[in-house]
Amino acid sequence: MLGRDPFTTAGVKKGPFLPDVAVVGAGPVGLAIAWRCAARGLRVVVHDPAPGSGAAHVAAGMLAPVAEAYFGEHELTGLLTASAARWPAFAAELADASGADLGYRADGTLMVGLTADDLAEARRLWAYQQGLGLPVTVLRPSELRDREPALAPRVRGGALAATDHQVDPRRLVPALRTAAERAGATLVASPVRRLSDVAAGVTVVAAGCGAAALTGLPVRPVKGQVLRLRAPGGVAPGFRHVIRGYADGEHVYLVPRGGGEVVVGATVEERTDTTVSAGAVLRLLRAAVDLVPELGEYDLVETLAGLRPGTPDNAPILGPLPGRPDVLAATGHHRHGIVLTPVTADLITDLIVTGEPDPLLAPFAPDRFAPTGSEEGHPWN
Amino acid sequence: MLGRDPFTTAGVKKGPFLPDVAVVGAGPVGLAIAWRCAARGLRVVVHDPAPGSGAAHVAAGMLAPVAEAYFGEHELTGLLTASAARWPAFAAELADASGADLGYRADGTLMVGLTADDLAEARRLWAYQQGLGLPVTVLRPSELRDREPALAPRVRGGALAATDHQVDPRRLVPALRTAAERAGATLVASPVRRLSDVAAGVTVVAAGCGAAALTGLPVRPVKGQVLRLRAPGGVAPGFRHVIRGYADGEHVYLVPRGGGEVVVGATVEERTDTTVSAGAVLRLLRAAVDLVPELGEYDLVETLAGLRPGTPDNAPILGPLPGRPDVLAATGHHRHGIVLTPVTADLITDLIVTGEPDPLLAPFAPDRFAPTGSEEGHPWN
Repeated sequence: MLGRDPFTTAGVKKGPFLPDVAVVGAGPVGLAIAWRCAARGLRVVVHDPAPGSGAAHVAAGMLAPVAEAYFGEHELTGLLTASAARWPAFAAELADASGADLGYRADGTLMVGLTADDLAEARRLWAYQQGLGLPVTVLRPSELRDREPALAPRVRGGALAATDHQVDPRRLVPALRTAAERAGATLVASPVRRLSDVAAGVTVVAAGCGAAALTGLPVRPVKGQVLRLRAPGGVAPGFRHVIRGYADGEHVYLVPRGGGEVVVGATVEERTDTTVSAGAVLRLLRAAVDLVPELGEYDLVETLAGLRPGTPDNAPILGPLPGRPDVLAATGHHRHGIVLTPVTADLITDLIVTGEPDPLLAPFAPDRFAPTGSEEGHPWN
Repeated sequence: MLGRDPFTTAGVKKGPFLPDVAVVGAGPVGLAIAWRCAARGLRVVVHDPAPGSGAAHVAAGMLAPVAEAYFGEHELTGLLTASAARWPAFAAELADASGADLGYRADGTLMVGLTADDLAEARRLWAYQQGLGLPVTVLRPSELRDREPALAPRVRGGALAATDHQVDPRRLVPALRTAAERAGATLVASPVRRLSDVAAGVTVVAAGCGAAALTGLPVRPVKGQVLRLRAPGGVAPGFRHVIRGYADGEHVYLVPRGGGEVVVGATVEERTDTTVSAGAVLRLLRAAVDLVPELGEYDLVETLAGLRPGTPDNAPILGPLPGRPDVLAATGHHRHGIVLTPVTADLITDLIVTGEPDPLLAPFAPDRFAPTGSEEGHPWN
């Protein structure tokens, strides 16, 4: 097993009850790692003063490696695809372990363009995605409308990513917490201000944006504003696919849920505040109503902003800190924290248990951001 | 004095502490009547389970008899003008009596049109208002921008209603409550389900939409949705006038306040729910940002819907119920409750004290809605 022997290593509090694994952060990633580790027989403590209050509370929960496959992010796309492939089994296992309904839905994702310009932009991306061998089916306008009559007549064209699913993050987090606790993990509602606050054989930093202060890793907040609408009377929304698209140059997604909920998102802003701005709400609502006119009649029940943990290359940071094999990063998931939860939990848990990193982890190692010169003075030394 | 002698009249609870006046409803109108009556030495009790929670909580607080002067509402315009003329003295007296700052502002109102069509519509109304002798000054585009540089360059034209002022309803209500209580009025946090629940020499029904169930008067809820924005950092908004206008056919107003607040309103919907709809927020934000682009950068801090007490002729209902000289209506103020508060309080108080109705009241008497045939079975008999 990775990490220091808790009874002999200097600098770590000693004691017979020292856990094998301390996880900093009780978002989906941290809780899933805690669940997986506890299920493997490790003693696990999770530290978070407010479990589930981070980016997951705002997230839409799209499991969309195909629609999210973007120019220049080839390695990230591979990890997204690997994780999305694990999701059906992960969801079934978690539902079983927690007794909770996760709102997992496999209706697929429609990618659409409102105007001719929007469609041209979308087609460029679909061609790239198809070039990667991803399952993107371009639809004729009649096929698009047969699949989703709620789309505005103005929508010029679309494509189907049938394997892009969705889950409800607000159901996922409590389910993971239940599963982790049932497997024997302990949650501690205390903040961790520095790594030396934590005593364990291995420490996993799954603190989202908070990882920067703890580790010096280049994780920065990326603001996202999201709306939640509800169909009048709480009836099911008039569409069943996740709809993503460009509408007059604005990128928007619409995620239909049980109980009439539709999540509309999201801005991507290099800002650190969590205020909701009039302009963002205007742009999201305009794009949403332009694509699916019936949404204008829906109740606006929530406007919210959250902070994603972004990284310089938009990919997560997974693995030991340079020179600190007892401290593993599992952060920087940016816009992909929900879809990447299963693969992150599996790979980090395997690393802890076996001491051997899976080859899938290689492109995401923390040392890709290590200073090129002397590392003296770097926060993790 | 109007009303029954509390010690002799049948059907009214007798007792040495029977108040002279019971007011049903602690909105601005009810509280102002209570204040005025108590200041005249009457014993006053105000009944409301949730003072100030009605339409006033949503209202923008425009004191705008000029901008609100509308085709076919000549008598209402007269009352609005009379009340607005009382506002400066009323505000000063209330500030003195309560020790509160009401947020009264005399910066004037700009009426604008975004497109050529919007401007044509606005000009038709300005000509009507000028024809009534109201102070509307049409501005050249350069004059408009000199007055309010925050207006979008697209705005085609505007006019000034310099005497249309504003007040903050959320400051007004607590100030009126303080003044009423200091003058000796008593607030009772109990609902009034029928008039017989109340025992007093005179009962004033100032219950907004609730007046219908109590009196049978034709008061109906008219839904209005309103947004509150706030300038980033809480600095003063970048404009000082109230701005009202048409923007691509949408009528909108923008009320700048201290603390950076801007109220954006309002829909007028024949609906009885108080849900906030995505379409209404979209239309209000679009019109607001089209007229004053900087609003896109503001925080969206509140979305809210309220119910105005509407009447068949859009005018309030003021005076005794037919056959019930001891029950006075002071309701049906629709979109004009705040501006009409002083004149309503003065006229109703004078009527209670002197027994003589002011001629200003005549067009607004409840009996204008009395059934033309037999009145048997009418709720107030």
